[in-house]
Amino acid sequence: MRRAIELAARGLGSTSPNPVVGCVILDAAGQPAGEGWHRRAGGPHAEVEALRAAGDRARGGTALVTLEPCNHTGRTGPCAQALLAAGIARVVYAVADPNPTATGGAWTLREAGVSVEGGLLAGEAEAGNRAWLTSVRRGRPFVLWKYAATLDGRIAASDGSSRWISSAESRADVHRLRAQADAVVVGSGTARTDDPQLGARESGLLESETTQPLRVVVDSNATAVKPGARVLDGTAPTLIAVAEDADAAHLEGLAPVVRLPRAPGRGLSVHALLAALHERDVRSVLLEGGPTLAGAFVAAGAVDQVTGYLAPALLGAGPAALADAGIGTIAQTLRLQLTEAVRIGPDLRITALNTPQES
Amino acid sequence: MRRAIELAARGLGSTSPNPVVGCVILDAAGQPAGEGWHRRAGGPHAEVEALRAAGDRARGGTALVTLEPCNHTGRTGPCAQALLAAGIARVVYAVADPNPTATGGAWTLREAGVSVEGGLLAGEAEAGNRAWLTSVRRGRPFVLWKYAATLDGRIAASDGSSRWISSAESRADVHRLRAQADAVVVGSGTARTDDPQLGARESGLLESETTQPLRVVVDSNATAVKPGARVLDGTAPTLIAVAEDADAAHLEGLAPVVRLPRAPGRGLSVHALLAALHERDVRSVLLEGGPTLAGAFVAAGAVDQVTGYLAPALLGAGPAALADAGIGTIAQTLRLQLTEAVRIGPDLRITALNTPQES
Ligand SMILES: NC(=O)c1ccc[n+]([C@@H]2O[C@H](COP(=O)([O-])OP(=O)(O)OC[C@H]3O[C@@H](n4cnc5c(N)ncnc54)[C@H](OP(=O)(O)O)[C@@H]3O)[C@@H](O)[C@H]2O)c1
Ligand SMILES: NC(=O)c1ccc[n+]([C@@H]2O[C@H](COP(=O)([O-])OP(=O)(O)OC[C@H]3O[C@@H](n4cnc5c(N)ncnc54)[C@H](OP(=O)(O)O)[C@@H]3O)[C@@H](O)[C@H]2O)c1
Repeated sequence: MRRAIELAARGLGSTSPNPVVGCVILDAAGQPAGEGWHRRAGGPHAEVEALRAAGDRARGGTALVTLEPCNHTGRTGPCAQALLAAGIARVVYAVADPNPTATGGAWTLREAGVSVEGGLLAGEAEAGNRAWLTSVRRGRPFVLWKYAATLDGRIAASDGSSRWISSAESRADVHRLRAQADAVVVGSGTARTDDPQLGARESGLLESETTQPLRVVVDSNATAVKPGARVLDGTAPTLIAVAEDADAAHLEGLAPVVRLPRAPGRGLSVHALLAALHERDVRSVLLEGGPTLAGAFVAAGAVDQVTGYLAPALLGAGPAALADAGIGTIAQTLRLQLTEAVRIGPDLRITALNTPQES
Repeated sequence: MRRAIELAARGLGSTSPNPVVGCVILDAAGQPAGEGWHRRAGGPHAEVEALRAAGDRARGGTALVTLEPCNHTGRTGPCAQALLAAGIARVVYAVADPNPTATGGAWTLREAGVSVEGGLLAGEAEAGNRAWLTSVRRGRPFVLWKYAATLDGRIAASDGSSRWISSAESRADVHRLRAQADAVVVGSGTARTDDPQLGARESGLLESETTQPLRVVVDSNATAVKPGARVLDGTAPTLIAVAEDADAAHLEGLAPVVRLPRAPGRGLSVHALLAALHERDVRSVLLEGGPTLAGAFVAAGAVDQVTGYLAPALLGAGPAALADAGIGTIAQTLRLQLTEAVRIGPDLRITALNTPQES
């Protein structure tokens, strides 16, 4: 199953709106006979790939799969049927499928006399599919807020300079996060200050080809993204979110525009933005800031994971990583669960989750 | 030698102005015959303790000691002579003694025909004696700045509430830092807001008795520490640093007062403060903030180590861990070297050093 989880991870970033899934087939003697993973939406499911690789050796064998096999006939036909047709005798899956349109694969298999077990390495498989599972459970994309700051929490110096707080290694790691996300989102402030390109650079670390995320700028008044902006460079899809009443004529032909309601206080509705992205098959969002937009996401209860790149450095002045999130007292503090702290070059990458019960 | 380093660490917090030292004696056959460590200033040196434990078995044996044996006749007589008198044939030390009044022990021993080697596990032994070594090299106490903050670098909420940002486990860990420091320093802002007691609470984690640090409040105008303040509770020594022209009559009989020159900008001179503490045999300072005073220490180049307790929590508002340190651009950022990141309960403790070349 650990191998199946590894295989599943190869699909991160290219399977949306589907989950990542990995599958290993053992023959009747318990020897590995084939493996597969879901590579991209519309492509074969992991089970189908693995069965194809195993060929006749699948008969009487076992399928180890990270997610309960699907039972519905989507673009690729139900996997439960494929497993039955191949003569699989036993299916072991890690996580039950929470998707209301897909669930029931285990039931179908059991009805047909296959021995079925769930829950093996469920915690690890859940973590590997966190974005997709969260999006199904919440009905909106999973949001990972990423920031790079000094030990004292500054993301830029007092003169506004912010190149570079974190190391080249950390910045390369961010490209990996981008490649795994369906969309990368920034606010108009960041678009104006940094003119970011927001694509995922090719990285030797990735086994699969680098998949480009949808680049999203939240630019209420359509004033930050101008013709010539790097985010409009055509290397990846782009979406500019503007207010219903904004004049976005200058963006015509340059990037699609989505019109959203304004939020009561400032900017656009975070919920409307996430709903619009969900509709576009985005299941995971990498929120790259800045602090103002991140504050709005936190206030909206829309941050599921925080990944901070902490540089062992001190500034003593300059903007903090997170601006107003509607939290006024210690009692209201948003408490997360620390899940990881690893060195990335000279820096420390800290990961914390907003779902303590789901660690 | 690793055992000797462990033994040395038991003295942390109680040996100032002396270093911590550990010693293991092997008999002529290479079997452990005795061990000792320097327990407190004025008490026997590690070598003398270990020789006493080894008795006759020291003859023809080896002394493993974390610091080059001293050669000067202080309160306890030179260790080099004691090793010779006991008939030790070989001395292996980790770190050379940088103290100009003590150096030369290795030379004396060699002259007398003892085989002497230095440098074994020098890195580890150096780390164990970092505070003392730094104080000798810099001619001022070693300064460890400690803070507790959220992931976004806030040390309090916007309403000023700060109890508690970090966990009970982290707070217990801070008591360990206090017990290891010779002095704990806070600014008048912290004294006014928190009325801290600043003592080291007894902790089952400590092998030796908890030693209380000198409690220091930097209160330029003698207006923050009032009669009845917890820092005056008599459970540990206290020192109030005030300006030369401050009216400190109300502190008479309650705590000693040291008068220091004002700094050009604000508050008292950090250099004068550290010199005054050094004179009082303080070799290591735990700077507990707040952000304003910590900023002044950073600006004065007087922070040697940073230990941050990061709570996996977000606030989005409230004071940052470090206030103005005279750094205005990214190029001027104070870059440190990350040396440790460990979980303390739900929090993460991060340690970084301001001495990249001495890691
Ligand atoms: N180190 C890092 O990790 C990192 C990452 C990103 C950015 N940065 C730095 O952050 C700085 C920019 O940050 P920023 O805070 O000024 O800008 P920002 O967060 O990127 O953008 C804020 C703007 O987004 C718009 N917006 C749209 N919907 C919103 C909503 N619901 N709530 C709040 N704002 C909404 C608002 O302007 P309109 O309504 O007018 O559109 C708002 O002013 C730059 O210096 C950049 O270098 C650092
Ligand atoms: N979470 C944590 O780790 C932590 C730790 C400590 C404090 N805190 C919080 O920090 C807050 C207080 O911080 P703060 O920044 O207001 O106060 P602070 O740093 O404790 O004290 C600042 C004051 O120290 C005096 N001072 C003396 N010499 C100075 C110098 N060379 N440079 C600068 N100041 C000097 C100045 O006042 P005078 O010149 O008038 O004396 C200055 O206003 C409280 O809310 C407290 O809870 C948090």
